[in-house]
Amino acid sequence: MLTTPSSLDQRFGLSRRVVLPGPLRLDGGALLAPVEIAYETYGSLAPGGGNAMLVCHALTGDQHVASAHPRTGKPGWWQRMVGPGKPIDTDRFFVICANVLGSCMGSSGPASIDPVTGRPYGMSFPVITIRDMVRAQALLLDHLGVGQLAAVVGGSMGGMQALSWAATFPERVAACLMIASTARHSAQNIAFHEVGRQAVMADPNWRGGDYYDGDPPAAGLAVARMAAHITYLSEAGLTEKFGRRLQAREQKSFGFDADFQVESYLRHQGLAFTDRFDANSYLYITRALDYFDLAEEHGGLLANAFRGTATRFCLVSFDTDWLYPTSESRAVVHALMAGGAAASFVELSSPYGHDAFLLESPELDRVVSGFLGTGR
Amino acid sequence: MLTTPSSLDQRFGLSRRVVLPGPLRLDGGALLAPVEIAYETYGSLAPGGGNAMLVCHALTGDQHVASAHPRTGKPGWWQRMVGPGKPIDTDRFFVICANVLGSCMGSSGPASIDPVTGRPYGMSFPVITIRDMVRAQALLLDHLGVGQLAAVVGGSMGGMQALSWAATFPERVAACLMIASTARHSAQNIAFHEVGRQAVMADPNWRGGDYYDGDPPAAGLAVARMAAHITYLSEAGLTEKFGRRLQAREQKSFGFDADFQVESYLRHQGLAFTDRFDANSYLYITRALDYFDLAEEHGGLLANAFRGTATRFCLVSFDTDWLYPTSESRAVVHALMAGGAAASFVELSSPYGHDAFLLESPELDRVVSGFLGTGR
Repeated sequence: MLTTPSSLDQRFGLSRRVVLPGPLRLDGGALLAPVEIAYETYGSLAPGGGNAMLVCHALTGDQHVASAHPRTGKPGWWQRMVGPGKPIDTDRFFVICANVLGSCMGSSGPASIDPVTGRPYGMSFPVITIRDMVRAQALLLDHLGVGQLAAVVGGSMGGMQALSWAATFPERVAACLMIASTARHSAQNIAFHEVGRQAVMADPNWRGGDYYDGDPPAAGLAVARMAAHITYLSEAGLTEKFGRRLQAREQKSFGFDADFQVESYLRHQGLAFTDRFDANSYLYITRALDYFDLAEEHGGLLANAFRGTATRFCLVSFDTDWLYPTSESRAVVHALMAGGAAASFVELSSPYGHDAFLLESPELDRVVSGFLGTGR
Repeated sequence: MLTTPSSLDQRFGLSRRVVLPGPLRLDGGALLAPVEIAYETYGSLAPGGGNAMLVCHALTGDQHVASAHPRTGKPGWWQRMVGPGKPIDTDRFFVICANVLGSCMGSSGPASIDPVTGRPYGMSFPVITIRDMVRAQALLLDHLGVGQLAAVVGGSMGGMQALSWAATFPERVAACLMIASTARHSAQNIAFHEVGRQAVMADPNWRGGDYYDGDPPAAGLAVARMAAHITYLSEAGLTEKFGRRLQAREQKSFGFDADFQVESYLRHQGLAFTDRFDANSYLYITRALDYFDLAEEHGGLLANAFRGTATRFCLVSFDTDWLYPTSESRAVVHALMAGGAAASFVELSSPYGHDAFLLESPELDRVVSGFLGTGR
């Protein structure tokens, strides 16, 4: 089935949703059916279908990569990268972005209705992996009539999906662009996520995940988000942005209000997040991230994941990213080389830590354009 | 008043407690009275009083520096450093260690009884600063008949107190040894503490700090401790200690139990902490740390804090400490130099991050012995 978006869709990137019968066999052994996938597309699929590109989103991202978020009204999360004439050029590519399995923006996740009970899954939703997300995206591509992807692109968790795509469906991926990511979650990565999960589960409103008919565990989720948010920023970036500057009142309160700007900023980040994200989805997706270890899926040797592949790879890291530092990208490059893959790698300089991949960066634009052949 | 400890005291480091009438004027403007201070001493005060040494403890530390903790039964937190023949040699020095103001091991803090109401202070306890802790310790020294300290020594928050001692009472400090510490809390330091405070305050059992007749906010405090604990360890140390190793069952559960050893370890750290520490004290002491900025207390220029001082300084940092990195120690050394102080500085190599100052380290022992003149 070939989908040709209307001009309206091309302009606004209207969100679509497909219910695929499944069942999808998950890494944990469970069968998921049906498999709902919410997605957006930008640009037109060429008649031969050779111009399709998949953009994968990060932990708390969504399918609105280049169009306004329906709930917050904010621009798409990578609007500066994806669009007509941009590095991911929608004049040339048919760009697909799907909400990942386990999330809460329309794809199957813990807030979805379990057809067996007629009630939200909650914690009875099966635990998923990055590869499960990729398999669900493959179902979507089948539905859209897309055989091979010209490229799969992603930053952070999106980069893990991109890598997992190349390892799981090598014949469907011509090019793979992984930005600010890793082939496996480290002990420190797991530790931070565990703090977040414990914060959610410690909130009495969480009620074992069965909160959909009451108040959600917003306080716990806000704390989880605050802790995670620190890891997205560099120490230098925090110092540049906030330092020890006080709030407007310019005096320490000698109390427990947010005296420092950085406190107020973090509290805001935590609270705003609870308006747009489901706490159970946060548990499931962090679990998928922590389980991610591409080498483990291939007999303990990462090179095995890519042996003999025809996919071209490009990896980008940022020098101040301490969540997924450059050393993680290097390990992937070494494995690609050992597997005989064509791989290029660049470490970019930025003061902004992990978040740099989402921010204005002419250097990143040039790397992406160059790799995708969209340079002018 | 001169105190000569009995031989029993010298051996077991029995805890003492003194109630000083006060009032103590605090940086926030409040008057605290009475001022209770729990402390331990080791060794004997020489007739001239010239061999007294103050050891200052870290955020969740206590006065039991070289003797068993009365609640947990564990050895003193710096037993490998303090004792007869050790770098801080109790055969030669009269070592004093006092529980800091705001803490919960016998010194005045939010769990103490407010003489006005007859009930625990809770959040009506005044917000305190590192300098307030130091001023309370000075009252204790007066009580003990100690004029000048041969040295004040501390790691982490203890190092901040040592530095604050040298800046606040220069004539009372012959030597100052600051380990793995800083002269001010960075935006990232504040951010992590704010996550912890929000976790405590989000726990419904916290009840605005008025929980002493009910269940304490243990779940929130455990999350706070987990988040903080990550900052005490290096990424490399976590990887070495846990990596991605699974718990004994050796299989992922595809659930939300602690699959990874690092998860189980962190959960244990969080829970164990709630048995020995008061949540409100955690709020007050983290606040004191975040407020700490020694330059700010001296017209914005750190060198002013030490101009013309006769105190000798020694600073030690650890190369993998990302909580108080070497750059922070360097900034203090530069200020000491600019102020004309005698200062030596060494960065030690350790895989263990901030916690290294508490662990076995022959290099640290040599530096401490050398600086204190206790080397053999």
